Amino acid sequence: MIAETPKPPYYAVIFSSIRTEENNEYSETADRMVELAKKQDGFLGVESARNEIGITVSYWRDLNSIKSWKENTEHSIAREKGRNKWYKTFK
Amino acid sequence: MIAETPKPPYYAVIFSSIRTEENNEYSETADRMVELAKKQDGFLGVESARNEIGITVSYWRDLNSIKSWKENTEHSIAREKGRNKWYKTFK
Repeated sequence: MIAETPKPPYYAVIFSSIRTEENNEYSETADRMVELAKKQDGFLGVESARNEIGITVSYWRDLNSIKSWKENTEHSIAREKGRNKWYKTFK
Repeated sequence: MIAETPKPPYYAVIFSSIRTEENNEYSETADRMVELAKKQDGFLGVESARNEIGITVSYWRDLNSIKSWKENTEHSIAREKGRNKWYKTFK
């Protein structure tokens, strides 16, 4: 639930979004992304909540581990689907 | 909904929490804190979501504006009530 992060300093990636009504593959992909992120070197934890808006915060050891996660192929494909199908807007 | 923050760099304060079942004064206080925070010098925006856990991210111009908000008397009293009544756990 609340991530058990180590003593700071570390980095946080904040992803805020508003969903479309398209649910096809959404929750499976979201679960899969958490599963994949957990395997990344430097991953420290993740927290998510959604009602009117969704906020997902992932925690990372350093900027390089964030960069590697961003460049992960399966994650990149999921982000592309997110832009096209699942998110009305995000930041 | 999604905060309209300026071009980075700026700072984010991430507050993650799990609520108790005590609702007395909770939502009034939460609304009041947003209203007060908006009046603080350096406040840039806020986003909140809650289901299993709650995440509130507030955005600030600099560390000094975060410090001033933390030292705001009404906010300090609200945080104390949060610790004692409204939150099972928080980070």
